[in-house]
Amino acid sequence: MRERRGSTVSRDRAREIERLARALRGIPVRTEPHYRLSYGFDATGTRGSCGGVAFPGDLRDLGRLVRESSRRRIPLFMRGAGSGFSGGSIPLDNGLVVSTEKLSRVLHFDARREEVEVECGLVNKELQDFLEPLGFFYPPDPASLNFSTIGGNIAENAGGPRAFKYGVTRRYVRSLTWVTAEGIAVERDPPRGPTAALVGAEGTLGAIYAARLGVVPLPAAYRTSLLEVSAGWGALSLAGSFIAAGLAPSVLEYIDSKTMRCVGEYCCFGGLARDAHYLFIEIDGSREEADEQQRLLESLAERAGVVIRAASTEAERELLWKVRRSVSPSLARRGVTKVNEDVSLPLGKLEEGARFVHELAHELDLDCYVFGHAGDGNMHVNVMTDRRRTEEMRRVESFVERLFARTVELGGTLSGEHGIGMTKSPYLGMIFTPAELALARGIKRCMDPEGILNPGKYFSREGAAA
Amino acid sequence: MRERRGSTVSRDRAREIERLARALRGIPVRTEPHYRLSYGFDATGTRGSCGGVAFPGDLRDLGRLVRESSRRRIPLFMRGAGSGFSGGSIPLDNGLVVSTEKLSRVLHFDARREEVEVECGLVNKELQDFLEPLGFFYPPDPASLNFSTIGGNIAENAGGPRAFKYGVTRRYVRSLTWVTAEGIAVERDPPRGPTAALVGAEGTLGAIYAARLGVVPLPAAYRTSLLEVSAGWGALSLAGSFIAAGLAPSVLEYIDSKTMRCVGEYCCFGGLARDAHYLFIEIDGSREEADEQQRLLESLAERAGVVIRAASTEAERELLWKVRRSVSPSLARRGVTKVNEDVSLPLGKLEEGARFVHELAHELDLDCYVFGHAGDGNMHVNVMTDRRRTEEMRRVESFVERLFARTVELGGTLSGEHGIGMTKSPYLGMIFTPAELALARGIKRCMDPEGILNPGKYFSREGAAA
Repeated sequence: MRERRGSTVSRDRAREIERLARALRGIPVRTEPHYRLSYGFDATGTRGSCGGVAFPGDLRDLGRLVRESSRRRIPLFMRGAGSGFSGGSIPLDNGLVVSTEKLSRVLHFDARREEVEVECGLVNKELQDFLEPLGFFYPPDPASLNFSTIGGNIAENAGGPRAFKYGVTRRYVRSLTWVTAEGIAVERDPPRGPTAALVGAEGTLGAIYAARLGVVPLPAAYRTSLLEVSAGWGALSLAGSFIAAGLAPSVLEYIDSKTMRCVGEYCCFGGLARDAHYLFIEIDGSREEADEQQRLLESLAERAGVVIRAASTEAERELLWKVRRSVSPSLARRGVTKVNEDVSLPLGKLEEGARFVHELAHELDLDCYVFGHAGDGNMHVNVMTDRRRTEEMRRVESFVERLFARTVELGGTLSGEHGIGMTKSPYLGMIFTPAELALARGIKRCMDPEGILNPGKYFSREGAAA
Repeated sequence: MRERRGSTVSRDRAREIERLARALRGIPVRTEPHYRLSYGFDATGTRGSCGGVAFPGDLRDLGRLVRESSRRRIPLFMRGAGSGFSGGSIPLDNGLVVSTEKLSRVLHFDARREEVEVECGLVNKELQDFLEPLGFFYPPDPASLNFSTIGGNIAENAGGPRAFKYGVTRRYVRSLTWVTAEGIAVERDPPRGPTAALVGAEGTLGAIYAARLGVVPLPAAYRTSLLEVSAGWGALSLAGSFIAAGLAPSVLEYIDSKTMRCVGEYCCFGGLARDAHYLFIEIDGSREEADEQQRLLESLAERAGVVIRAASTEAERELLWKVRRSVSPSLARRGVTKVNEDVSLPLGKLEEGARFVHELAHELDLDCYVFGHAGDGNMHVNVMTDRRRTEEMRRVESFVERLFARTVELGGTLSGEHGIGMTKSPYLGMIFTPAELALARGIKRCMDPEGILNPGKYFSREGAAA
């Protein structure tokens, strides 16, 4: 994407941002080229157009910043780690990025109520590290948890492997403190009325400052296993049959053979069967429950003729988790551009969907990797490619369109957990009915009449000036 | 409340409803006086003004009904059991009541996904009875569960005693099928975009037809106890200290001495200490967990010098639950009018709040009863009075206003679970900030531009024509 630095819009915007920066005395606003470059793209690799970066330090700062920007109609793009996979935090039209880096405090912890209040810029992992010695954890665990922020997690209603047992972000948000598009601070406990709409709104309806989150006591025991399934895609149906037989794991992931070979190379995990598909399973609970469930898993695996590797020490558990967490980074090394879709399918259609993806990738000669959450039907489909190879990118586009069409046919949805952002907003018409789109756009206009909050994303795509 | 039958508005409305009834061939619409009377009030005892009652039988009916009413601008009032305590289902301005009585089917059950799809008119208890032999239960359990409907529970985001452990309705709604104010059917799975706003919107944003709900496997064991605390309101702080000591019950209720005396008379439950306050506690889980927790409870109770009555058979458990469930009906016999408020307080302020209520009732010479969920700070404050005693009602109004003011001072909220409806909408300004009210009213206008969905309630009070 070329920057239109010389255009009239950009020159005007640059002057506007300079004036804004002066009005915001005390709140750092950086407009140097290396800031505008670094904050101009996200994990999709797509480059937007960034006019500057502001670093509010507290709720008062955030309120002033939104108020002044609203008065001047300068579009704002809230940004946590920029680790999203749907372009949700990419700035457009030389707008102002609002970085939440300085908003990373734990504000309050209450063991009795099992809750913690944190600022939006706190990294998920930092929250887990804070909670663990206190005997608690925060269930949402997106694969990006080492860098993604709580604010970003709330904006995307993030899930993760544990969502199968513990549910997604919305379940844990007990109150939100946020700033309306006009710059007015709102604290709402529990989230109701307009505040309830903010979770999962991808930053288009309000600027989140802090959240009170429910947390859960750490389980007494974990049992972690990696299962090697030689029955090919049948691994997915096998996972379903385990659940039907009474297995209730906290984590139930599958990784296809091609992905697993990548992981094996990346983290030097040996002894993998070349063509096997894998299930990654973790059970948690009291020691008795965990043992009972693990015995059930082992007998089910044996009956299915599946090789099971069960961690018997904490170090072995860490190793198995390292395998699971290495999926994304190991793929990232395979190509310049990672096209990363996360569709969701009814459980009974998962095997059929995965077979379809595999055959389609073969037909279009694309380098494709499939893994995901077998418990809730979420399937991550990754195509490794290179944006500069125009002809291949056309095949990728065709792949994505046919994947989406087949997903809808099979009764699935187009986004499991990555959100709509920019990359999926052209497909909104496949996901939402015209009535819903009209309503959602009406709500957007009502909550952000000037269209300054993350314009060009999700339902506000029609207002994009990109 | 006088009916304005002779007024021009009413005569015009009656003719409109007759014409609507003809247009809705196949959908029963009743306008006889006994229908308009029976469907004209709710559990608050307040009489509204009902122009007729429609009985849609499926989604198509509901869509046609809303579409035709919208075209004619006839206000609609969805009604489940009419058991709400905030006037949410009371019809106003001779509008049309939409009864969900004929929408009471279980549509689908899936043990593997642990979910059930039901129409909105299904009674909560009927759902529980359907699930129990299958080995599951639906956690939200409002005190009204024997008659209140799933649609009403969703509209109010209902909780109940088990909410302390299992959370409220929103956690279990996996998809909603509903009709927009223009009469267009929407199915959204999971609830996102405008659909997410429907849970807890008290029927003001859309007409719910059906929901897919998460359900939970029945626990293997329950341990149910009634604790007699002679330390007066100290019972509330005691409950808090139990949680701090590691007790994690599924239900933790308190009942003040005056309420308990009523219950004792009503259900002939003997041997109650005259001035003791009571805690009702249920533990659930695996047999081992339940036993371990029960031992903890008994040792905590002993240390606090509290008499504990633990159910040792299923019949004894039923008896203790009968005591808990008899609270509302036993109070209802004490006076003609029950003014029923459900405020929520921070846990640490519960004892202080209850003492304040007690002293205030004494000062104003009112007959007041306090009970509620000690686990999450929800406090039910009931004043037994008689609407016809004007001077006493003035004291009740003053009581409610001072209760609300003190609740806000103590950091609490004005509605734990009964909703805003009509009775609390005059206090919206105490609960929500002007910015929130403006946003909420904007969303209402956007989702229901003609104001035909439950006008005069919750955020749409400004549009009331009562």
